[in-house]
Amino acid sequence: MSETIRLRAIGHVRGGRKEPIDDDWDAVGCTIALDPAQFQPEATASLGDFSHIEVVFHFDQVADEEINRGARHPRGRTDWPLVGIFAQRGKGRPNRIGVTVCRLLSADGLNLKVKGLDAIDGTPVLDVKPVMTGFLPRGEVREPAWSKELMDRYW
Amino acid sequence: MSETIRLRAIGHVRGGRKEPIDDDWDAVGCTIALDPAQFQPEATASLGDFSHIEVVFHFDQVADEEINRGARHPRGRTDWPLVGIFAQRGKGRPNRIGVTVCRLLSADGLNLKVKGLDAIDGTPVLDVKPVMTGFLPRGEVREPAWSKELMDRYW
Repeated sequence: MSETIRLRAIGHVRGGRKEPIDDDWDAVGCTIALDPAQFQPEATASLGDFSHIEVVFHFDQVADEEINRGARHPRGRTDWPLVGIFAQRGKGRPNRIGVTVCRLLSADGLNLKVKGLDAIDGTPVLDVKPVMTGFLPRGEVREPAWSKELMDRYW
Repeated sequence: MSETIRLRAIGHVRGGRKEPIDDDWDAVGCTIALDPAQFQPEATASLGDFSHIEVVFHFDQVADEEINRGARHPRGRTDWPLVGIFAQRGKGRPNRIGVTVCRLLSADGLNLKVKGLDAIDGTPVLDVKPVMTGFLPRGEVREPAWSKELMDRYW
């Protein structure tokens, strides 16, 4: 039922924060350096026509024992409900995958300057996709109070 | 520079389309069956408080020779520009990762009924995250004409 899937980092986050801190990520700029051993510069052709990209990355600093497979209080806040790991976006999750939309400042061949990517220096990047309005949520988005509160200072 | 990362499917898409077809995905319903050998039902606790989820999945039917590492015309449309693989969302991409926001109809323990997930029956699922408005794009989204045209009939 659960086969192993082997991936290879397409590049890494360079610069930005050295340590994971919960909030104010929109103030942080960094570069996504795609691997020149795997890709030619045309792999990012026309990416500059998009204002935002979606970055899929690997929380490689998360240890096995930090991975939650059940439920927990987000950020340990016991005034918030017990929430399943698949109902929150914290890093201590199965497969350690992060997905974040950030602003693309420039795409210079294999070097992408971005702002507001909540991944630290050295993070392996698994994919980069353009943000198309057609891929945003269809219909009204409903969410609980705790997730709005959690995001209050995040960016 | 580019280490191997081993992942394990957290579950699979069950039902829905048997073949990848480009358009009208919002008409398609399917179930994400999370692996009971890995997770207890509380792994999805409170997920029902969200209207939409983001599903990270693996295009496992894409053969090595279908993977583009440079640029191509999206959907082979030569009237559209040559676009780098990281500036489009097609399935023939390095690491074969898909990320899609769809509607969550119900979360019954490890079985999530969804609508509008553009992944076929049997697709391995790598992660499920709740859609929080705080994780949507900050600021106005700019995109080229071809990506709007491509999405016209997609959902």
